[in-house]
Amino acid sequence: MKLWQKDKTALASVERFTVGKDREMDLYLAPFDVLGSLAHTKMLASIGLLTGEELSALQQELKNIYGEISQGDFVLEDGVEDIHSQVELLLTRRLGESGKKIHSGRSRNDQVLVDLKLFLRAELESIVKDVKSLFDLLQQQSEAFKGYLLPGYTHLQIAMPSSFGLWFGAYAESLVDDLEVLKSAYKVVNKNPLGSAAGYGSSFPLNRTMTTQLLGFDDLNYNVVYAQMGRGKTEKIVAYALANLGATLAKMSMDACLFMNQNFGFISFPDELTTGSSIMPHKKNPDVWELIRSHGNKLQALPNEIAMMITNLPSGYHRDLQLLKENLFPAFQTLRDCMSMVKLMVENIRVKDNILDDEKYKYLFSVEVVNNLVLSGVPFREAYKQVGMDIESGKYVASTEVNHTHEGSINNLQTAAIQQMMESVLEGFHFERVHEAVDGLLK
Amino acid sequence: MKLWQKDKTALASVERFTVGKDREMDLYLAPFDVLGSLAHTKMLASIGLLTGEELSALQQELKNIYGEISQGDFVLEDGVEDIHSQVELLLTRRLGESGKKIHSGRSRNDQVLVDLKLFLRAELESIVKDVKSLFDLLQQQSEAFKGYLLPGYTHLQIAMPSSFGLWFGAYAESLVDDLEVLKSAYKVVNKNPLGSAAGYGSSFPLNRTMTTQLLGFDDLNYNVVYAQMGRGKTEKIVAYALANLGATLAKMSMDACLFMNQNFGFISFPDELTTGSSIMPHKKNPDVWELIRSHGNKLQALPNEIAMMITNLPSGYHRDLQLLKENLFPAFQTLRDCMSMVKLMVENIRVKDNILDDEKYKYLFSVEVVNNLVLSGVPFREAYKQVGMDIESGKYVASTEVNHTHEGSINNLQTAAIQQMMESVLEGFHFERVHEAVDGLLK
Amino acid sequence: MKLWQKDKTALASVERFTVGKDREMDLYLAPFDVLGSLAHTKMLASIGLLTGEELSALQQELKNIYGEISQGDFVLEDGVEDIHSQVELLLTRRLGESGKKIHSGRSRNDQVLVDLKLFLRAELESIVKDVKSLFDLLQQQSEAFKGYLLPGYTHLQIAMPSSFGLWFGAYAESLVDDLEVLKSAYKVVNKNPLGSAAGYGSSFPLNRTMTTQLLGFDDLNYNVVYAQMGRGKTEKIVAYALANLGATLAKMSMDACLFMNQNFGFISFPDELTTGSSIMPHKKNPDVWELIRSHGNKLQALPNEIAMMITNLPSGYHRDLQLLKENLFPAFQTLRDCMSMVKLMVENIRVKDNILDDEKYKYLFSVEVVNNLVLSGVPFREAYKQVGMDIESGKYVASTEVNHTHEGSINNLQTAAIQQMMESVLEGFHFERVHEAVDGLLK
Amino acid sequence: MKLWQKDKTALASVERFTVGKDREMDLYLAPFDVLGSLAHTKMLASIGLLTGEELSALQQELKNIYGEISQGDFVLEDGVEDIHSQVELLLTRRLGESGKKIHSGRSRNDQVLVDLKLFLRAELESIVKDVKSLFDLLQQQSEAFKGYLLPGYTHLQIAMPSSFGLWFGAYAESLVDDLEVLKSAYKVVNKNPLGSAAGYGSSFPLNRTMTTQLLGFDDLNYNVVYAQMGRGKTEKIVAYALANLGATLAKMSMDACLFMNQNFGFISFPDELTTGSSIMPHKKNPDVWELIRSHGNKLQALPNEIAMMITNLPSGYHRDLQLLKENLFPAFQTLRDCMSMVKLMVENIRVKDNILDDEKYKYLFSVEVVNNLVLSGVPFREAYKQVGMDIESGKYVASTEVNHTHEGSINNLQTAAIQQMMESVLEGFHFERVHEAVDGLLK
Repeated sequence: MKLWQKDKTALASVERFTVGKDREMDLYLAPFDVLGSLAHTKMLASIGLLTGEELSALQQELKNIYGEISQGDFVLEDGVEDIHSQVELLLTRRLGESGKKIHSGRSRNDQVLVDLKLFLRAELESIVKDVKSLFDLLQQQSEAFKGYLLPGYTHLQIAMPSSFGLWFGAYAESLVDDLEVLKSAYKVVNKNPLGSAAGYGSSFPLNRTMTTQLLGFDDLNYNVVYAQMGRGKTEKIVAYALANLGATLAKMSMDACLFMNQNFGFISFPDELTTGSSIMPHKKNPDVWELIRSHGNKLQALPNEIAMMITNLPSGYHRDLQLLKENLFPAFQTLRDCMSMVKLMVENIRVKDNILDDEKYKYLFSVEVVNNLVLSGVPFREAYKQVGMDIESGKYVASTEVNHTHEGSINNLQTAAIQQMMESVLEGFHFERVHEAVDGLLK
Repeated sequence: MKLWQKDKTALASVERFTVGKDREMDLYLAPFDVLGSLAHTKMLASIGLLTGEELSALQQELKNIYGEISQGDFVLEDGVEDIHSQVELLLTRRLGESGKKIHSGRSRNDQVLVDLKLFLRAELESIVKDVKSLFDLLQQQSEAFKGYLLPGYTHLQIAMPSSFGLWFGAYAESLVDDLEVLKSAYKVVNKNPLGSAAGYGSSFPLNRTMTTQLLGFDDLNYNVVYAQMGRGKTEKIVAYALANLGATLAKMSMDACLFMNQNFGFISFPDELTTGSSIMPHKKNPDVWELIRSHGNKLQALPNEIAMMITNLPSGYHRDLQLLKENLFPAFQTLRDCMSMVKLMVENIRVKDNILDDEKYKYLFSVEVVNNLVLSGVPFREAYKQVGMDIESGKYVASTEVNHTHEGSINNLQTAAIQQMMESVLEGFHFERVHEAVDGLLK
Repeated sequence: MKLWQKDKTALASVERFTVGKDREMDLYLAPFDVLGSLAHTKMLASIGLLTGEELSALQQELKNIYGEISQGDFVLEDGVEDIHSQVELLLTRRLGESGKKIHSGRSRNDQVLVDLKLFLRAELESIVKDVKSLFDLLQQQSEAFKGYLLPGYTHLQIAMPSSFGLWFGAYAESLVDDLEVLKSAYKVVNKNPLGSAAGYGSSFPLNRTMTTQLLGFDDLNYNVVYAQMGRGKTEKIVAYALANLGATLAKMSMDACLFMNQNFGFISFPDELTTGSSIMPHKKNPDVWELIRSHGNKLQALPNEIAMMITNLPSGYHRDLQLLKENLFPAFQTLRDCMSMVKLMVENIRVKDNILDDEKYKYLFSVEVVNNLVLSGVPFREAYKQVGMDIESGKYVASTEVNHTHEGSINNLQTAAIQQMMESVLEGFHFERVHEAVDGLLK
Repeated sequence: MKLWQKDKTALASVERFTVGKDREMDLYLAPFDVLGSLAHTKMLASIGLLTGEELSALQQELKNIYGEISQGDFVLEDGVEDIHSQVELLLTRRLGESGKKIHSGRSRNDQVLVDLKLFLRAELESIVKDVKSLFDLLQQQSEAFKGYLLPGYTHLQIAMPSSFGLWFGAYAESLVDDLEVLKSAYKVVNKNPLGSAAGYGSSFPLNRTMTTQLLGFDDLNYNVVYAQMGRGKTEKIVAYALANLGATLAKMSMDACLFMNQNFGFISFPDELTTGSSIMPHKKNPDVWELIRSHGNKLQALPNEIAMMITNLPSGYHRDLQLLKENLFPAFQTLRDCMSMVKLMVENIRVKDNILDDEKYKYLFSVEVVNNLVLSGVPFREAYKQVGMDIESGKYVASTEVNHTHEGSINNLQTAAIQQMMESVLEGFHFERVHEAVDGLLK
């Protein structure tokens, strides 16, 4: 059953090729397609294209379908091309002619656009929650391990004293900036394309402001040509946001793999979280971290894939856009899995004590010694020279006291200020508005 | 002259290789390096590391250097490795020992970080201004040409009536979302890394909050490890923002090239803006648009380049980061040039009148006819079938009236609402705070 | 069942995360894993690590498993982690202890490496066959339509006469260069990593030359560290080859979409190969071409994804590599599907006759007129000026005769020479050697 | 002076924008443009479009210009748009009207195509030479350090004994596969596009086979539409080849940075090749390696940039292609610089002796012990269990003997076989044919 078919048949091979993985991908969109129709039908009734009776029957049946989807009782039947057709089919089967009317004033183009926006909005919200939860854990560990010193490296060379308080805290703060970027994607997502039809609007007197409010969108994608142009562009901007988070997780994984390496030996994990070998008892393979890193890097390649697929397409819909779903849709679950694994690892991390006692780290503190001399009045170049000569002559004695006190340093992590910064980013999302609207549609 | 050298000499070839294009790139940073030092020295004096006398001499001389940079009288002398060394050298030459003191409590790592942040902040502001100006022009043209109809294509097939009002307006609205993304980059940029030293903080009792305020930053990059981790990440996030704008301009260029093609023939430009051939009088080559498209696509590849160069580097500074400047720094000017060229073209565009009179567009309006029947009470599938049969039997008469009235459609462009959306995005930048701070430093 | 486990249990969530899609991906490798074991066991027997009896039992049973795989009777049982474990499990179940011996002198690292090489080799061969078949068709159509002229565009502006003979032939010739690149990937693939164990070799006196010959490899990946380093690198090089083909198909699709557009109207296809609308009879949506283009562009992004995932990993195995399979393995089938669709479309294409009769193409021939004057002795600048003036004054009369005779031009397509070039590329593959070896192992 | 201008003037800003960096980029092409004209004019004379007298004057003057270019005496004069115009201008100035005739039968499109092919061919040859020289050095060091053992890592965990013989040798062998890929790029490059004119051929009776032989090309890009389609595609395929080499150098750099890190401490370099600090005497920053890694990764991003800029452009010339030069042309020199730096570092490397004596490496040999038991007849699982129990009970005594003997293992590096493989790849280039042809043109 295809909406565009009158009385010809496409070749089976063409059918197979053009449908591709779309039936599988469309399941991601199912609940959102119903939400879109709940709003669209209310609007159609308001402009006289559905009777009150038709509307209430359709609303009831759409809510039933939504329930079926939630309970996992929903399938795309064989031969049904996409989610829109399946929902329309169910409605027509159950309600007769009025089921077909839900397509009035819409095209599959704006229907998939609105589904996509609602889906992305929900996925982004879910990501935000997981990011916040990981952020909280990292901040806790930052405080818990603030007394555990660590060599800080530059050029991968031992350079200055650092701490696990700083290390955990750095990744917490990284998530703040990542959410700032994600928020811009959320704002681009949370605008209503419904009513743009095939990208050129409709001659029906649609009330797009009404569906905007019903669906909890912040605003409209006003211009109908732009609404269609948002397809692909929106996905790319969302992919930027995922890529950023992927990069943060990947970097943390690289650090963790290095720190677990026996030449560093800074951290370890319970056996259940690593793989190993009984004849190499020191070998604890960080498979979990390696796979997080790999997923994170794959996410980093996603915006480029999307850009490559849409670049240089003139304005207007092209079927090319269909394939954007395939790597993007599962990416949200992948990212959530990765964050969940990072949490598991970070919760169970074991940090080695007294790392800096090792002889090879003794010069870590030489800069401190120079600075202390400066603070006591010795000019910098003088102090530097004196410490250099002490080291050459073997007179240098490593201090292991770290007196860093300024904002964001070892002894002043500013955990609360960073948390405040996070809260302030979170405030801009206004998820509550969306929940209210969606609840309104479903109640 | 290298800051890290005591008494050994690097090989000339190593010197050449490691310096690379850095001297050229550092010129972009020159005024910002001075701004950073203006703030840093004030802070040093406030914690007793400079006397009042030293401070006022340094402030005066730094302002002199800033003036020299503004007037183009500043060069990196032969053998001077980077901008920081050059400024320090000038100060030392002019003021003696106190010139060397400006490096106290800083490392080249946080010095280049703060320079970079200040540079990126200024460049992003400049881009925002040009985007706004292009936006205004596109909105004007959208209104000016709202009566000029155009075939709208889906699958590159003639589909529905569109208009130049919609076409210009779509690209205007696209810039709103682009600025939303750019704003997130601006917010990531506008945080203060100064005081993170080599990425592990300092034992000096620095007052990072003070430099944050002096330099007009919104907030700190608190955690010193994260401050350093922001290198590369910040550039990548900025590159996303540029890539988005590049994509918008490239897409518009693709449309323009197609519309200028003689098979479409919708638009043309004065001879001065195209290239051509006297023996092919109809040939007007859209070189300007093609180069905008190409630059736009090159910008789209930039975030990926940056990601490729920093991926899987463990935390801490690596010299790899130096090369990120080479394609990023000139990209701002390229983007501004492209926007300026788009403006020139859009201002001088000539739109063909009565495009839709051509016979090949007559079916454009068939959907309208169906919809009109529906509005008059005929069920959709019935109306559709009837119009289909009229077309088959040759009875179909093309109407050329377009009655689209809903928000964002041909007859209801919502120019003011889109402008309002743009204003609301612009409000979040708060450039005035930055100007005040910078003026304060320089006065 | 995991090879590395003694008596601890991984958390279920860790298990799920680390296995990921690997069980699904490993099915691609199943027959090749058996081939590897057929060769490996022969070699083990030759160095005394298997008795003759064990060998013949193992050979027999491995061939049985190969048969089961070929007939689709093979599954990865629940709880079995990968293909290697499944094969070993079956052998042990059927043959007892000797089943376990097949792992001697191997690690999972070189086992998956050799599986991967054998899989990629087979897939590349299959791609080559489909490319050749598409090439032949394009050459046929090039000859069949050599008399059908077409406007040639530069800058998307009407420029010079072209022909469908040239158009089809160009894509045929493009495939020659694409196969040249693919051949280099094939050569990189067709070297034997078996015996490199975990990437550092083995203390068993393995005979790697023997397995090289048995498996039909051209040569060894000698250095065991390099053999392991080939993981990821090989996939990336193969991805380059696929990306090139993807680019060729995508470009042809872009042309086809443009040529089907009603403003061009150069080609059309039977209804079964397009989608459309009964009320817009002229609308024939090129969904097949659009999806080929989109798949082709996705393939173009694949090498970058792989590079992003492996960049900056130090030498030695990392679990990151596991995820490279997920987009690469299905890409071969996608590419074959696309080539099959291109064939279907090209076979059924309908080319419009007398395209150039349209008035808008009349200046196409002005360069010919100039050249004819030059050939008759008029200096070029003179001839150019004269034709320019004729055009301006309206005296220009379009000739529609095209006298291009040089190699590769409209009237001299050089189909045979291009075919010869293709044959010469194909000769370098030597598939027959591989077939002989594989047949030898299985007989 | 622009070839396409009759009597109108482009706006200065348009001029500036469209010329861009092209004048700078065209200097790379200068000698090759002259070579192309040397061949083209001979061919023109052979078909009667130049007299013998004109030909010999042009040949003489072109050789003069070639000499001026070689001696650095050649500039693009102000207002001259490109290299082709500059050469034509010089000829016309010196020889009068016949200078203008060299453009007959060519368009700027095929002129730049042939320049590009000749330039790329020369650059690739130069890269091949440097690769070979680096390969030889790596093989020498592999032999020189074959007795220096090293821990081999998997998952970045200590796993098995390796050696510097293997490490150097691995990168040598990596270059063999890299050259295999580069050779395919060379073969794609080394075909003649001259005569394709603007991408649709010419009505002059050109002899393209003649210019093919004169310029030392292996074959023709026959189909004129394909010849033009090769623009962009060729650059991308060349970029793949550079990216591969970049990846090899970057990976080696990552290893070197890790090995120089004090926690590993396997290698060091003379002070002249590192940067450091006198108060941190153990700090030897690997700036050279870090910059090689960064350049290598930037090269890895290049094919994607090119793909992004040409994707979805329909067939036929577009001005977009101009910008491909900007990152590609300097990339060759960058790659050569990087190879030269790798050579400098590898020549001066200092490898630590007796690395494996450190206690933390004692389990490295446990697999050997298991294997030895197996070779003496103990079943594998039994042997494995026994060694595992010895380790648990503290009875395990680390052997430090490595008995790997198979092909490509520690004690059997197969240096000669790898060299043979390299020679066999090199044989396929046939540079001598090119030299002969070019010498023939210039003598």
